[in-house]
Amino acid sequence: MARENTTVLLAHGSGGSYSRRLIEEVFAKAFSNPLLAPLNDQAVFSLPAKKLAFTTDSYVVKPIFFPGGDIGKLSVCGTINDLAVGGAEPVYLSASFIIEEGLGMDELKRVVGSMAATARSAGVSIVTGDTKVVERGKGDKLFITTTGIGVVNGPELTPSNIRPGDAVIVSGTMGDHGVAIMTHREGIMMDAPVESDCAPLHTLTREIISAAPAGVRAMRDPTRGGLATVLNEFAASSGCSITIREDDLPVKEAVRGACEILGFDPLYLANEGKLVAVVSGEDAGKALSAMKAHPLGVDAAIIGFVTEAPKGKLLLETSIGNTRIIDMLSGEQLPRIC
Amino acid sequence: MARENTTVLLAHGSGGSYSRRLIEEVFAKAFSNPLLAPLNDQAVFSLPAKKLAFTTDSYVVKPIFFPGGDIGKLSVCGTINDLAVGGAEPVYLSASFIIEEGLGMDELKRVVGSMAATARSAGVSIVTGDTKVVERGKGDKLFITTTGIGVVNGPELTPSNIRPGDAVIVSGTMGDHGVAIMTHREGIMMDAPVESDCAPLHTLTREIISAAPAGVRAMRDPTRGGLATVLNEFAASSGCSITIREDDLPVKEAVRGACEILGFDPLYLANEGKLVAVVSGEDAGKALSAMKAHPLGVDAAIIGFVTEAPKGKLLLETSIGNTRIIDMLSGEQLPRIC
Repeated sequence: MARENTTVLLAHGSGGSYSRRLIEEVFAKAFSNPLLAPLNDQAVFSLPAKKLAFTTDSYVVKPIFFPGGDIGKLSVCGTINDLAVGGAEPVYLSASFIIEEGLGMDELKRVVGSMAATARSAGVSIVTGDTKVVERGKGDKLFITTTGIGVVNGPELTPSNIRPGDAVIVSGTMGDHGVAIMTHREGIMMDAPVESDCAPLHTLTREIISAAPAGVRAMRDPTRGGLATVLNEFAASSGCSITIREDDLPVKEAVRGACEILGFDPLYLANEGKLVAVVSGEDAGKALSAMKAHPLGVDAAIIGFVTEAPKGKLLLETSIGNTRIIDMLSGEQLPRIC
Repeated sequence: MARENTTVLLAHGSGGSYSRRLIEEVFAKAFSNPLLAPLNDQAVFSLPAKKLAFTTDSYVVKPIFFPGGDIGKLSVCGTINDLAVGGAEPVYLSASFIIEEGLGMDELKRVVGSMAATARSAGVSIVTGDTKVVERGKGDKLFITTTGIGVVNGPELTPSNIRPGDAVIVSGTMGDHGVAIMTHREGIMMDAPVESDCAPLHTLTREIISAAPAGVRAMRDPTRGGLATVLNEFAASSGCSITIREDDLPVKEAVRGACEILGFDPLYLANEGKLVAVVSGEDAGKALSAMKAHPLGVDAAIIGFVTEAPKGKLLLETSIGNTRIIDMLSGEQLPRIC
């Protein structure tokens, strides 16, 4: 072990001295914090709060580096966002790595560095983790599972709170992440490549809740399955009907163009730095202003409203004045988008 | 979707209607509990405690079904055990699944059923989760990442507490899990097949702490890398020396036999239902009695002691009376053992 390994070996997942060295020299160095430092199998901390939020996600995005981000940044942002849209302040993350034998050590370090930088700038700590290595051909470079704990101090947000008269607001343009991955993966050349919107949303959700503490019913980050899938879930959970207006939906020109060429619908495309909020009609203006004042919400828009019937359905008012029912994503649009 | 799918499809990872159906009909049904039921992206709960413990592990064991358990049971026990050996009572788990396209739906249901049964009998709830699907040949049937939260009410246990005069106790026979996986994987026929010891240890750790609250310094479950690796980490963290006696180490005859044939050393083999505890010399007898009175500790034995020097080293007194230094596992003994 005098020379440094340039790729990840099966031995790095053995639990023995190679594992120890990988943990100390790659993970512990990058994520450096007092809770992780003892390298015990568990982190122990005090976290006084009336309520805690707990969420997990595995990331299998392909390729692991893409315009606007990488699997590491995505894995930290995604878990922060799942806490944030539940009204929680993210505090601690765990990170578990399933590495395919042969992954370049430089690639791993780049991903881990990206996770560390994202976590640090978001004010969260990665306090515990695990690493497994599988044989060549039994994985695909790198899968990461991040789990987060947050504290809930304000109202608990849940789609069952949604009621008729509420407004539907998105924090920005839809479909950027999906198009960024798809065009990059397929090698499609664009004049101005679309970048993933991958970003942590917890400071945005904080502003929204602070602007309209009693008015926010539910928030969600429309990732896999896109906005149409989230709003279908909201309609189903609340037993209400949701109507959105095609003309009011913010979509970048480049994303619209790529969708037309490739036959995708921005309503079903994944986003990784956007949220949809349902807010009381009364407070919708305050929530919208709070979003627009935040760097991640400048393109925010009210795109629809909640009514009583048809129960559990999502409707789209199209540009030409028709209204049609929009279902959840059915089948597979884009595998391994996150 | 009128007919039920017999295998997992890429669409089951899409985030859309196939994902929803998989979550509702497989995961939510098996794990059924009030925190999971809303199927939000995060679970929210109150957990009043002075201190919390947080741990994560990915499971990539191959094959996914083996004598004495399966990847599902292993993933629940392993995370419970990482909390338990830190002195925590396990409370909530998350579970994230990375499934290879084509996995039999019946296999998935069997694993999930096993997780649910193990969690229920251990008194923990699986309250949040995620599912991703990767293409055929980009995974290997099923990888599971479980993350656990526990409450620490008693002393916080950490290897840096270990000091000269302490005793080293194991809760039972070493190497059962490693030999069970290895012989099963290689198709080696044995008169009496060795079963994995896979079991949740939190009631055993509770008894140990209760019997010797001030005497327990540190506990660890010797999984990957085995007992030798854990005791090397203990020696390094505490700056003490640890000596164990070969003759006192409990090893099943069948395990010893398999090790001799295959060239493995029980000191480096993985265990999934055993722990090693370092306890003050004064309290060692009480801790040993508490272990022996528990169904998972009937073969418990005091196997060694802690001294001042040689600092950071693990020594083995062999059956023939020699003493030699035992290193951490170096290289790879058995890939994908857990």
